[in-house]
Amino acid sequence: MPRYKLILEYDGTGLVGWQRQENGRSVQQIVEEAVARFCGAAVVVHGAGRTDAGVHALGQAAHLDLPRDYPPDTVRSALNQHMRPAAVAVLEAARVADDFDARRRALGRLYRYRILNRRAPPAVERDRVWHVGPPLDVAHMRDAAALLLGRHDFTTFRDSSCQARSPVKTLDALDVTRDGEEIRIEARARSFLHHQVRNMVGTLKLVGAGKWHVADVARALEARDRRAGGPTAPAAGLCLVRVIYPGD
Amino acid sequence: MPRYKLILEYDGTGLVGWQRQENGRSVQQIVEEAVARFCGAAVVVHGAGRTDAGVHALGQAAHLDLPRDYPPDTVRSALNQHMRPAAVAVLEAARVADDFDARRRALGRLYRYRILNRRAPPAVERDRVWHVGPPLDVAHMRDAAALLLGRHDFTTFRDSSCQARSPVKTLDALDVTRDGEEIRIEARARSFLHHQVRNMVGTLKLVGAGKWHVADVARALEARDRRAGGPTAPAAGLCLVRVIYPGD
Repeated sequence: MPRYKLILEYDGTGLVGWQRQENGRSVQQIVEEAVARFCGAAVVVHGAGRTDAGVHALGQAAHLDLPRDYPPDTVRSALNQHMRPAAVAVLEAARVADDFDARRRALGRLYRYRILNRRAPPAVERDRVWHVGPPLDVAHMRDAAALLLGRHDFTTFRDSSCQARSPVKTLDALDVTRDGEEIRIEARARSFLHHQVRNMVGTLKLVGAGKWHVADVARALEARDRRAGGPTAPAAGLCLVRVIYPGD
Repeated sequence: MPRYKLILEYDGTGLVGWQRQENGRSVQQIVEEAVARFCGAAVVVHGAGRTDAGVHALGQAAHLDLPRDYPPDTVRSALNQHMRPAAVAVLEAARVADDFDARRRALGRLYRYRILNRRAPPAVERDRVWHVGPPLDVAHMRDAAALLLGRHDFTTFRDSSCQARSPVKTLDALDVTRDGEEIRIEARARSFLHHQVRNMVGTLKLVGAGKWHVADVARALEARDRRAGGPTAPAAGLCLVRVIYPGD
């Protein structure tokens, strides 16, 4: 059974997230059904990580085993053909070693969160951004983000359903930039706790709005208590940009 | 009846275009219904120009008369409130002179056409771009675009249903740029013929794909015959970016 790595783009709107679930269509199910139609095999597609309902991806990674040795270009175009008109696309397919594991081999994940910061609600980008009307102070958000960098116990930003063994993670980047009406927050780490990015963004937004001081974020982090953190930012603004592997 | 100018953003997906029609929801109808709910008045909202079904806008302009003198900010936020969850937003509302006419006063229109030029189909941007798989040569497209600049009889790029009195228009800009996998074509003119931008884009794409030479575009323009031009590019890739007025 030759193993393949896939890079996937998807619009998470209306999907239940990466993982198969009873209550709706998932990205995993859409890809697995396309594989079944392509080569008749019922295989499991293993993602580098789960994304929540409504969260998008420009570069999710996954691996799967196929019953025959197909050219990678054939795998990519056949899966894209069979997934139509679903909002999931295979950007790249590659033959990888039989022990390649999309989740375990990943050295890092890069997420981007988009806030549309203007009075009028979004029309064109309404399923891709968090709309925040009052002006946010990006400089203050950046100062608060700097406090979260590095190795910490992130219990304050961890969803109660999170199954990670340890709440200690190392946050390698948390960049806040403004481009006109849009504020982008890019977070990079080897791995994240469940809802960690959205919970950090919800907290930074409080700082940007002047409701929290930068020092409040330090206190929240030290509290190691989810109730001490800000609210969870909406799923629609979040996008998994890239999964990083050795050699990338 | 005080007159207001509106700047509108909309996602044209699933709408029948700007103008009211029997066969589906139009932007005009959505805005007019919001006005009726806001102030009980049945008024006509006059757009600066029509956009086709599936075409988007980041900055359509329109004017309308309201029965009372409301603060512009109230008009904007009330209409946005009443249009939810439609994919139409009022970005700006302003009080204007009683003889302001969104269509007649416009000095220019700026349209952007987006081509996603990569093998894999679009997922996140699938309703916003034209997907072209084989690589397009942007330098050749630019050379062909230069031939269309200026004042010409654009009959070759005019839809047979076009109601303009004259096919002679002056094209002020037709810029072709590449940003990674995306090719953007920006067209600016005082006004355009029906389908002119999409017909020019469909022709430039033939040049980019190597199916037409640059000289074929000159011959097509001179033919003054729609059958001599390339196909009409899909609506989804087109966006009305801005309508330009005196003093902008």
